[in-house]
Amino acid sequence: MSGRVALGIDIGGTKILAAVVETGTGAILSRARAATPADRGPAAVVDAAAGAAHVALAEADASVTVCGVGTAGTVDPRGVISSATDLLPGWAGTDVAGDLRRRLRLPVRVLNDGHATAMGEAELGAGRDGEDVLVVAVGTGIGAGFVHGGHLVAGPRGSFASVGHVLADPRGPRCSCGASGHLEAMASGPALEAAYRRLTGAGRPLVEVQSLAESGDERARRVFDEGGAVLGRTLAGAVSLLDADSVVIGGGVGQAGELLLAPLRASLAEAMGDRNRPVRVDSARLGADACVIGAALWAVRRGVSQSVHSPSSRSA
Amino acid sequence: MSGRVALGIDIGGTKILAAVVETGTGAILSRARAATPADRGPAAVVDAAAGAAHVALAEADASVTVCGVGTAGTVDPRGVISSATDLLPGWAGTDVAGDLRRRLRLPVRVLNDGHATAMGEAELGAGRDGEDVLVVAVGTGIGAGFVHGGHLVAGPRGSFASVGHVLADPRGPRCSCGASGHLEAMASGPALEAAYRRLTGAGRPLVEVQSLAESGDERARRVFDEGGAVLGRTLAGAVSLLDADSVVIGGGVGQAGELLLAPLRASLAEAMGDRNRPVRVDSARLGADACVIGAALWAVRRGVSQSVHSPSSRSA
Repeated sequence: MSGRVALGIDIGGTKILAAVVETGTGAILSRARAATPADRGPAAVVDAAAGAAHVALAEADASVTVCGVGTAGTVDPRGVISSATDLLPGWAGTDVAGDLRRRLRLPVRVLNDGHATAMGEAELGAGRDGEDVLVVAVGTGIGAGFVHGGHLVAGPRGSFASVGHVLADPRGPRCSCGASGHLEAMASGPALEAAYRRLTGAGRPLVEVQSLAESGDERARRVFDEGGAVLGRTLAGAVSLLDADSVVIGGGVGQAGELLLAPLRASLAEAMGDRNRPVRVDSARLGADACVIGAALWAVRRGVSQSVHSPSSRSA
Repeated sequence: MSGRVALGIDIGGTKILAAVVETGTGAILSRARAATPADRGPAAVVDAAAGAAHVALAEADASVTVCGVGTAGTVDPRGVISSATDLLPGWAGTDVAGDLRRRLRLPVRVLNDGHATAMGEAELGAGRDGEDVLVVAVGTGIGAGFVHGGHLVAGPRGSFASVGHVLADPRGPRCSCGASGHLEAMASGPALEAAYRRLTGAGRPLVEVQSLAESGDERARRVFDEGGAVLGRTLAGAVSLLDADSVVIGGGVGQAGELLLAPLRASLAEAMGDRNRPVRVDSARLGADACVIGAALWAVRRGVSQSVHSPSSRSA
């Protein structure tokens, strides 16, 4: 089992990554990338994903029997997109599982990209030592997933653990979802860039703000101090609610490492109040590969659990 | 199975209720009450609970084979209290399951009172039509529990769904747990009484504020409007995170009914943003009996699931 090889596909708003993954270790045997043709509609996006998948499959010298897809949007249990943002116009309603199954001639299992990333990090990345792991990808948006005892909890509507849309401050700015003061509106990459702009009047990409902070610039440090504090006190609520013992922070903003994680840990501990208990907070380890690795691993495990009900699929 | 009778015990900071419950319907066949001798320590509390239980058992004309206890405090999987507030001094560390088992000569299963209340309301009360039900008891504190497909999710450390300690406002007042701005500090009964005092300079018990609001007093209405709004936008995050489809509001504050629920529903819908989907919000129906009913039902179901592993207990 541990050595089973699967195809993973990550469908994002701007790029697609397909990889053949050895799911026992997370090792990537081959990979292929494509730009996401979001403006040409869902069929073009599925075609581009299938194209990348065929390249990755052709390059890998391995027998692949299942495909896992992590995609932007909320995914229903059949593998159909139930809702998506403007990043992928028309994506809602797309039968990603069915469309890719026909093109790849493989069983295809689909989940939200935050969930796939969580599966990868929790099982084969920074969350390996945790039992109840909340993985939060802080980037342009904030995606997340929760893995309990090796089992990804997707939720009946596929939105379990969506911490991006938890309240962080009722007076906070408008979120991408239209509501106000959500964590995503206050601690995502664009939110931290806006915070730096408010402090200095200067617009800079976050990587530059990070470099400045690392070289001691006080206002740049303050952006990460305050962003970490917002994340910590808000994620403490999610840690309580989910009874989690481990938090993994990834995504572009997460790459700031201790600059972000030190204030985050302090704020999280304070917000746990007298319910405080050891909660690990670590940086993600798998980087941009977490989603394909997690999607591949999840597809393999789902295949196994399904085989309990249909023994004939066990040999697949 | 549906007609199985069990003993339920509710151990609160001020009172204890024991009841013999027909767990198919939630009907209470007998009941007994006692004051909680909190100041005399844990052994006295367990004695008082056992005393009430014996009275209820003696009065019911039914064969009882299992006991479920809902208690203040966090409960570990063995039925030992892992943490508790000052309401029950010394309660942490008490082996409630073991101590009551010896006195009652019954299998005893113990869970947090918010979890027990959730089990009762979700399965036999206002949440019967929901599949993923978040039950929130808004009283002196805010307790809660989450029932997924009839299964109570307690969490490995027994704190799953503790929405009382989710952030509602970073500038909010200090919570009972020591942290700041948690939901419990902003929307519990004492918090709403404090809000009325701030608005009017007059201290009144919440039931009086409720009567005033019902007769049209504007400042009293505002207390419930704002309390409902805080609950709605904060619980929206929990609904997203848990992928819930139904919310049940109970407790003393919940008795305000539509006065609280109308602003709560509006605020919850707004905070769901474009992820909006039908989320039922109902008033609790079982009142102060929810905890004993839920504890009894949970004990019966746990007994059944355990019997899968030890067939000899099936006849118990």
